[in-house]
Amino acid sequence: MRALVFDHELELRSDYPDPVVSPGESIVRVSVAGICGTDLEIARGYVQFRGVPGHEFAGRVLESHNAALRGNRVVGEINAGCGRCATCSAGLARHCPNRTVLGILGRDGAFAEFLRLPDINLIPISDSMRDDVAVFVEPIAAAYEIFEQTHLARNKTIVVIGDGRLGAIVALVLKGEKYLPLVAGHHREKLARLAGLGLETAEESSLRERFDVVIDCSGSESGFRRAVELVRPRGRIILKSTAAAAAEINLAPIVVNEITVVGSRCGRFQPALGALASNKIDPRRLIDGTFALEDGIAGFEAAKNPLNFKILLRAP
Amino acid sequence: MRALVFDHELELRSDYPDPVVSPGESIVRVSVAGICGTDLEIARGYVQFRGVPGHEFAGRVLESHNAALRGNRVVGEINAGCGRCATCSAGLARHCPNRTVLGILGRDGAFAEFLRLPDINLIPISDSMRDDVAVFVEPIAAAYEIFEQTHLARNKTIVVIGDGRLGAIVALVLKGEKYLPLVAGHHREKLARLAGLGLETAEESSLRERFDVVIDCSGSESGFRRAVELVRPRGRIILKSTAAAAAEINLAPIVVNEITVVGSRCGRFQPALGALASNKIDPRRLIDGTFALEDGIAGFEAAKNPLNFKILLRAP
Repeated sequence: MRALVFDHELELRSDYPDPVVSPGESIVRVSVAGICGTDLEIARGYVQFRGVPGHEFAGRVLESHNAALRGNRVVGEINAGCGRCATCSAGLARHCPNRTVLGILGRDGAFAEFLRLPDINLIPISDSMRDDVAVFVEPIAAAYEIFEQTHLARNKTIVVIGDGRLGAIVALVLKGEKYLPLVAGHHREKLARLAGLGLETAEESSLRERFDVVIDCSGSESGFRRAVELVRPRGRIILKSTAAAAAEINLAPIVVNEITVVGSRCGRFQPALGALASNKIDPRRLIDGTFALEDGIAGFEAAKNPLNFKILLRAP
Repeated sequence: MRALVFDHELELRSDYPDPVVSPGESIVRVSVAGICGTDLEIARGYVQFRGVPGHEFAGRVLESHNAALRGNRVVGEINAGCGRCATCSAGLARHCPNRTVLGILGRDGAFAEFLRLPDINLIPISDSMRDDVAVFVEPIAAAYEIFEQTHLARNKTIVVIGDGRLGAIVALVLKGEKYLPLVAGHHREKLARLAGLGLETAEESSLRERFDVVIDCSGSESGFRRAVELVRPRGRIILKSTAAAAAEINLAPIVVNEITVVGSRCGRFQPALGALASNKIDPRRLIDGTFALEDGIAGFEAAKNPLNFKILLRAP
């Protein structure tokens, strides 16, 4: 099949082996896939992954031992647990120590004609949901994960640090859920674009007040330090982005000001699907380009442009 | 009055000015005071404080404009808020940005014949509570603060990192509240002593399992890193100790494993007083020596011995 493959560099291949159906794992024909920051990290060689990246997708089940899935339009949860360990038994397959992760860890991903996922990861979607909406389920689920982990009262003051893809989606989800987040960033053009989506925005360096909740979507080492400065005593920092390297961090203010730090990653798909189905969020306004899979290298180049929020790849 | 005073070094002075009563602030004659790790840091010059250290005490109100307080035996909350800012108005005077802290920040403390605190900080204690029990209210309140900040189910597996003063008190409080904490440390003698208090103990380096909750009472930079290794995915780290310096910390596992980190410092006194009154905890077994205030320098020397859990100073 055709696939974008990262080995030492990202390249388009037309001879990549097709995934093979097995009991418990189905083959999905990918309709559309989204490029996210993690994919760019993989393409830069910053992550220990070799193979087909891509984990945001919508598609149709082509082959399956499960008749109920065959032929369905689906999205898919990206973490595949072993199903046998204590973590999986506790319903936390997303944290299984033996897990594979679609296009990220030990499992080929969605920048290809076909992908394979466990049947239990596949979630049928209704015919009324467009592919270019469904493809946003994964990042939107990651934003909804915040609500699963911590109770946020509607009257809390919330700042989202980071005016990139992740910050935009987290802020749109918060707005869709009737919160009033402020998005803080450094890029005037991106902030203007986010303001155009109805979000409150601010130049980050201009912030002087303290917030009940600071959500770090900066993707940079300095994000956490800035979050500590911006959070009020007894407030919460929600860490959505992982800066790859260890940084000099002073944890004393976390103790002295009794800050709670919540690390937050992937989420369940159902709340996100519900929000998309009810039009609480319209993520299509974040799409800045759609490339054919064959033009995937050009798609990655476009995704590297920080002014572009979301680039999609469309299967042939 | 007599007082231990830290300027460039700790010294006993007999000519230190008596504190003066004012509307809203009372004078307490100190009966007994405890030396804690923060006091040792102050005596080493690691903290920006000049004056009389000491913040764990029991005493009797000597002078007050408040007739209801005069003559009462009391303990005292150590943070004195401004009473006017938004933080104080929200009931969080402990986090007032303009606060003074008894014997720690901008306010002389308890290693003296007399101290001064706001009337609202003083809490009368019953005649049946001994001075050498009441003096433990402050550190025990700091341990109870954990329950105010986060819900801990009784069936959670909990490890306390650190076999020193703080770890001992946190573990005794947990045990008093029917949890089953494991205390992990490096010092065989201290672990044996804690085992003698009925606590489960382990050599920290021998731990291989993961815990639902890790409470860092280590007071060392490495404590947080070790906590990250010992906590299960979706688990909690409670940070009780502040290592003074910034350290190289990789926050990625906090995000990937969705760990919640709860910074925790001082607590309200009422839960701790209740626990002491009902004998849920008997802290007197932690006392390793009682020195007269005049012998306070020798008391500090004794407190520096890591095998001693608690050294008290008794007023003349």
